[in-house]
Amino acid sequence: MPEIHSLQLQPIIDRALEEDWGNGDWTTDLCVQKGTKAHASIIAKKPTLASCLEIAQAVFFRVDPGLNIKLRAKNGDPVGEKTLLMEIEGEARSILKAERVALNFLCRMCGVSHMTSRYVAKLKGFKAKLLDTRKTSPGLRLLEKWATSIGGARNHRLCLTDGVLVKENHIRAAGSITNAVNRLLESLPPTLKIEVEASTLDEVHEALDAGADLILLDNMSISEMKLAVRTVRGRVLLEASGNITLDNIADVAETGVDFISSSAIIHSAPWADLSLLFTVP
Amino acid sequence: MPEIHSLQLQPIIDRALEEDWGNGDWTTDLCVQKGTKAHASIIAKKPTLASCLEIAQAVFFRVDPGLNIKLRAKNGDPVGEKTLLMEIEGEARSILKAERVALNFLCRMCGVSHMTSRYVAKLKGFKAKLLDTRKTSPGLRLLEKWATSIGGARNHRLCLTDGVLVKENHIRAAGSITNAVNRLLESLPPTLKIEVEASTLDEVHEALDAGADLILLDNMSISEMKLAVRTVRGRVLLEASGNITLDNIADVAETGVDFISSSAIIHSAPWADLSLLFTVP
Amino acid sequence: MPEIHSLQLQPIIDRALEEDWGNGDWTTDLCVQKGTKAHASIIAKKPTLASCLEIAQAVFFRVDPGLNIKLRAKNGDPVGEKTLLMEIEGEARSILKAERVALNFLCRMCGVSHMTSRYVAKLKGFKAKLLDTRKTSPGLRLLEKWATSIGGARNHRLCLTDGVLVKENHIRAAGSITNAVNRLLESLPPTLKIEVEASTLDEVHEALDAGADLILLDNMSISEMKLAVRTVRGRVLLEASGNITLDNIADVAETGVDFISSSAIIHSAPWADLSLLFTVP
Amino acid sequence: MPEIHSLQLQPIIDRALEEDWGNGDWTTDLCVQKGTKAHASIIAKKPTLASCLEIAQAVFFRVDPGLNIKLRAKNGDPVGEKTLLMEIEGEARSILKAERVALNFLCRMCGVSHMTSRYVAKLKGFKAKLLDTRKTSPGLRLLEKWATSIGGARNHRLCLTDGVLVKENHIRAAGSITNAVNRLLESLPPTLKIEVEASTLDEVHEALDAGADLILLDNMSISEMKLAVRTVRGRVLLEASGNITLDNIADVAETGVDFISSSAIIHSAPWADLSLLFTVP
Amino acid sequence: MPEIHSLQLQPIIDRALEEDWGNGDWTTDLCVQKGTKAHASIIAKKPTLASCLEIAQAVFFRVDPGLNIKLRAKNGDPVGEKTLLMEIEGEARSILKAERVALNFLCRMCGVSHMTSRYVAKLKGFKAKLLDTRKTSPGLRLLEKWATSIGGARNHRLCLTDGVLVKENHIRAAGSITNAVNRLLESLPPTLKIEVEASTLDEVHEALDAGADLILLDNMSISEMKLAVRTVRGRVLLEASGNITLDNIADVAETGVDFISSSAIIHSAPWADLSLLFTVP
Amino acid sequence: MPEIHSLQLQPIIDRALEEDWGNGDWTTDLCVQKGTKAHASIIAKKPTLASCLEIAQAVFFRVDPGLNIKLRAKNGDPVGEKTLLMEIEGEARSILKAERVALNFLCRMCGVSHMTSRYVAKLKGFKAKLLDTRKTSPGLRLLEKWATSIGGARNHRLCLTDGVLVKENHIRAAGSITNAVNRLLESLPPTLKIEVEASTLDEVHEALDAGADLILLDNMSISEMKLAVRTVRGRVLLEASGNITLDNIADVAETGVDFISSSAIIHSAPWADLSLLFTVP
Repeated sequence: MPEIHSLQLQPIIDRALEEDWGNGDWTTDLCVQKGTKAHASIIAKKPTLASCLEIAQAVFFRVDPGLNIKLRAKNGDPVGEKTLLMEIEGEARSILKAERVALNFLCRMCGVSHMTSRYVAKLKGFKAKLLDTRKTSPGLRLLEKWATSIGGARNHRLCLTDGVLVKENHIRAAGSITNAVNRLLESLPPTLKIEVEASTLDEVHEALDAGADLILLDNMSISEMKLAVRTVRGRVLLEASGNITLDNIADVAETGVDFISSSAIIHSAPWADLSLLFTVP
Repeated sequence: MPEIHSLQLQPIIDRALEEDWGNGDWTTDLCVQKGTKAHASIIAKKPTLASCLEIAQAVFFRVDPGLNIKLRAKNGDPVGEKTLLMEIEGEARSILKAERVALNFLCRMCGVSHMTSRYVAKLKGFKAKLLDTRKTSPGLRLLEKWATSIGGARNHRLCLTDGVLVKENHIRAAGSITNAVNRLLESLPPTLKIEVEASTLDEVHEALDAGADLILLDNMSISEMKLAVRTVRGRVLLEASGNITLDNIADVAETGVDFISSSAIIHSAPWADLSLLFTVP
Repeated sequence: MPEIHSLQLQPIIDRALEEDWGNGDWTTDLCVQKGTKAHASIIAKKPTLASCLEIAQAVFFRVDPGLNIKLRAKNGDPVGEKTLLMEIEGEARSILKAERVALNFLCRMCGVSHMTSRYVAKLKGFKAKLLDTRKTSPGLRLLEKWATSIGGARNHRLCLTDGVLVKENHIRAAGSITNAVNRLLESLPPTLKIEVEASTLDEVHEALDAGADLILLDNMSISEMKLAVRTVRGRVLLEASGNITLDNIADVAETGVDFISSSAIIHSAPWADLSLLFTVP
Repeated sequence: MPEIHSLQLQPIIDRALEEDWGNGDWTTDLCVQKGTKAHASIIAKKPTLASCLEIAQAVFFRVDPGLNIKLRAKNGDPVGEKTLLMEIEGEARSILKAERVALNFLCRMCGVSHMTSRYVAKLKGFKAKLLDTRKTSPGLRLLEKWATSIGGARNHRLCLTDGVLVKENHIRAAGSITNAVNRLLESLPPTLKIEVEASTLDEVHEALDAGADLILLDNMSISEMKLAVRTVRGRVLLEASGNITLDNIADVAETGVDFISSSAIIHSAPWADLSLLFTVP
Repeated sequence: MPEIHSLQLQPIIDRALEEDWGNGDWTTDLCVQKGTKAHASIIAKKPTLASCLEIAQAVFFRVDPGLNIKLRAKNGDPVGEKTLLMEIEGEARSILKAERVALNFLCRMCGVSHMTSRYVAKLKGFKAKLLDTRKTSPGLRLLEKWATSIGGARNHRLCLTDGVLVKENHIRAAGSITNAVNRLLESLPPTLKIEVEASTLDEVHEALDAGADLILLDNMSISEMKLAVRTVRGRVLLEASGNITLDNIADVAETGVDFISSSAIIHSAPWADLSLLFTVP
Repeated sequence: MPEIHSLQLQPIIDRALEEDWGNGDWTTDLCVQKGTKAHASIIAKKPTLASCLEIAQAVFFRVDPGLNIKLRAKNGDPVGEKTLLMEIEGEARSILKAERVALNFLCRMCGVSHMTSRYVAKLKGFKAKLLDTRKTSPGLRLLEKWATSIGGARNHRLCLTDGVLVKENHIRAAGSITNAVNRLLESLPPTLKIEVEASTLDEVHEALDAGADLILLDNMSISEMKLAVRTVRGRVLLEASGNITLDNIADVAETGVDFISSSAIIHSAPWADLSLLFTVP
């Protein structure tokens, strides 16, 4: 992943704070006196993967640049039960107003990275690389793709601009794979490859002949994928896609495909179980 | 839930489209000729609960107000395998550019509503109502809370402005439950109740004496909760919270609490499995 | 009032500066040479109440973070004629460009706080608390409500989310007070109370029976209000509203109501008379 | 005033609605069923001047383009007690959600126009024209200046870009009136006049000699202003400013100045007393 | 180019109008009475290429959706002296307020397309395709790239996301071409090609060996480019870049490169000479 | 020009960066390791005029406030071949991500200032001052007008608010020059002059009689302009406009007009030829 610049991250954080605060935090500002200092620790209550700690940090700093924050883990670290991830010190009101939003980001991202790392572990020893997809939470895609890359996946395109993927619906609207690829070859910037979705071996052949650089094997059986690999003989890259699970991913990798993509690593990843411990000295 | 007005929804949709499109959709605009018409059906591939169909509809209309859209299910309808949820007809390019974003919203919201409805079903016959929490995807809270209400839950506060919840960390920063509640009683708008988190019976007593309107029983055992119910004798409302699962929710309800809150109905709800079928006549 | 965070205040200030500057300040930038230093004092020319000084300060800092600013009064201080409120030192151009906007905020807010404090003074010795309303200058509500709280009022709800007030028009649209309250009891978050507007004793009874937590006595006579207080016997809170003036507020308080709300403290408060004295050493 | 285009008005309205709604209107959406129709009339309860009705109309349309709205008065019409200004028909929920914001704008603008018209009436028969100033509610300047023009005033500059006014503080920072005007003559666009503030006759002479097009007589006595008029003999325009009241404005006009400016017509104008009557057929 | 959606175009138009209007158009709104109707024709006074007419149209519609607009040319049409491009009919005020902004866009875009078409004409009969670059007017890139594509060029990447171009400075920072390409091969989405800038034949060899898909020949002489073409033998695509002029482009094409890129087609294209003729019937 | 405040500049820079980055810079972030330091020099490859260096500086700082930047020229300096304009030191990634945007601004602004200075040089010894116009790149007007003022021109109005120019089309819509000017005299703020476009001597007479302060001589011949100057005898200012070139501008000046306006200094100014040299120590 390219770095997420603060110019990209800030508006996402601001919207999350605005959404959570509404017109103000009655509880904190009425109960807690200004000037009260506190210390907070963010702890993983169950095993997970440390991820995107800088987002949580940025939330706290956005609320109060005077907070003193120390990251106690590195992105990509597997963390066990009761592991300290981050410490925050300073104005109690600030910590309390940032807490929920910071944790909502962090629980989500650690969850995605953790799930990704479990899939990646299954690919050990195989050529195939894990890819993510565009099935992401609206508004959080760059963050979730950062989380998959921390978990060990390679990113597929970030958006519709940095990759061409001719899917079944495009093929129908274009008339055929050949039509679609021809039109792309005419006008596409030379910096982009052409990927075509194929669900049969015939389509693999057509894509190959039309000039695709990459073929996505959509929901094929293991034996079909093996045939596709043999057919293609390295002339284009192959991506397997569709219903990839922790149980079947190794079998898919064994077919010899170059990439395996999974959307479940994002949309089915449960939140990490983190909490913020708070002490007033 | 109050209705989500288009003034609130539009910016969320615009950001999702902007995020997905980047600087433009090379695939669709190069492969598919302007003027090509298509028909699309959104289908549930596995059982779920129809939810927030208007969001998907608004995505399609935002991309192309000329599309012809028909909702084929109502929010809250349980839907079986292969059920039609929505039909869209018109410019093929428009449908293809809106597809992913519309589905990302819809899969998420149906997933949340479906999970919620499974919890709610367990409360049948009990007084207790299911509540959601503030553990939501950053930027999508109103939508996810709409989804829980479609699934049958009652909403807890939408943000920090429409509810006071004095949590453990506030109590530490304020010195005591009594301090915190006293300060609230002095300045809080008379339109808001005061809810206090208690993790022991002593704290329940303190909250009661201080003047709380609502007490959240935090991670108490079943027997503690029963004691709390007996202690309170209806003078304040009681909300049970912490590690509520489909397995234990009925037992919790049986204690006689008024509300049971769960964050899992949002953050651990897997996406509904929906897809868009596309035909070019 | 909850603190107004700079994330909430900044856009209000930016719009005010943008509005005042248009495409640039021809006068200052052509007449005054860069590097000219100046000292400025903000002075109350007539008695008022010091209020929201931080907003004026934030305006100056937004224009030039290099200015040196000293607050010479505290929010809530009554100030006499010719009292110094604030000193600013630094680049002359910056002070001149910020002056009008800073004063526009400050004159308005001191004016509101001053007027509020005059109403509050009349309530000395009574149980009743003064409340503000939603009749505020569009775009400036949080600031004006901060000003009323500095003036000694308690805030009523900030917006439509943090309070329920069933007004006459809602009752008509719902059919009856009972209908309206029943629907609220079914779906409202448990963190919110229900306030109902009543203009007759019959309506007070109906609201009470329906389950209201708070009743607003709308434009009732003193004797009606007394009857309402007697009727209700502390079971719900009572708010008197409608044509409250400095002359009649003590009589209203004497009826025994819990709250008295006034919109005049905001919309009829004249600006404080402040000016900025400027010296170039 | 130039017309206020919807591109300029829309964001002001949107912010006002967002501010008033917070995260949603619990009362209306829970009490009033979707589909309930209503009729509303906006009535002046006390005499005022009809003004900026289009802003209120735009608020209602922004909330619901399906409302049916009829303006029953024209901007600039003096209206007596119990006069109908506007009628709105349609979805009850929409009317109730727009009501407060629409009235907040309208009460403010009618109030400003009304106050302005009272000052203007005093100038009948005199050459002098009434001008407004930059002392306006932050964020509402264009609207308030529209209101003064409806009330019969001529606008002074809208912002720092469309007029040059060398004030006392600029003179100090520039060293002298002559310095300031010389620098302006060197670089100012030829489309702008130069106005200089003078508080003594000596300053009037200096401004005249330096090449000012317009001189603001700041807080001068009636006799000083008369002298200034005689001195200047029509070579430049004269604007009287400072503590103009309904009582003294005719005396000021009698001195022969060309313009008289007042900030009180905006910042000391009390709100018009309007209300919305609501019936459900 | 992918289509520019109104969601992308609208904010660009709004900013241009805001910039041109400031706080309002004194001239038009004071001189021209509301309701005056007019007819306007946009005419090319000198030969150019019709381009991006939809942007001008969108400006007029944004100012007044009630205008009646007819496009009288098609994007890509060469137009001679005194050719009609567009007609607009309706409210005179609206046409006058939109005129300058609409023409500013149109003169720029027709200018770019026209210049591009002159370069493209020189490539007739050669394999080489003309490419644009990222040297564009800040804020107008998509529009200017639309204009080059209308003029007959192929777009190079739109932004830093849809293409990888390892330039000299990247190579220095990475240590070597080989380092840079190796890091890309490890993490880049499989949808993107790798382009490497080379200014010597040695660098061409290194890029080829490292695994580049595309090589940019930077400021090479004709003979060096010929050698590069011979060396590469079609294994990667070659792009010639640097000081391409109308005079030398055919010679460059003759070397056998696949692409020739020029920034001059954008940044050195003079505006088309268009004007708006206006009649009031 | 009034100073361009960072509040005005920041959004222009942010949009330019957002446009250039899309969703991220794959090349830089994958090739260049975090922590790699570099030194960069911005050099003029051909003679130009140093201009708006602060904009380029602001771009670098926006990307990375930790960069160390030294300006090596002053705005308005004529610079010869191979002249150093600016040095930047720090994180290599930051320099590479800011480079293109910073240069796009700088090449444009130096180009405009350089072209302007060539026109201004022709006016040496004449009374006439060079003016710019509203024919500017959409979104970049303030910057381009800053560049013309650095090049030695006087600015004409920045937008439609800070100047009145009654053009031919306004005259048609108003019926006559006299009508237009009369309406302006009735309502225009006294801070603004009235400029009228005239293309015949008759129109000059009419404008003069109507009360114009300034007359624009539109596309008149040299002899007509001389007549106009003689006619007007200094009672109003005269601006010559239309097809001003480097070749004819001295002849126009010789007629005795006060101002000569040119749009070519902006829209036909080619970019300065600048580049960024980059070394990794």
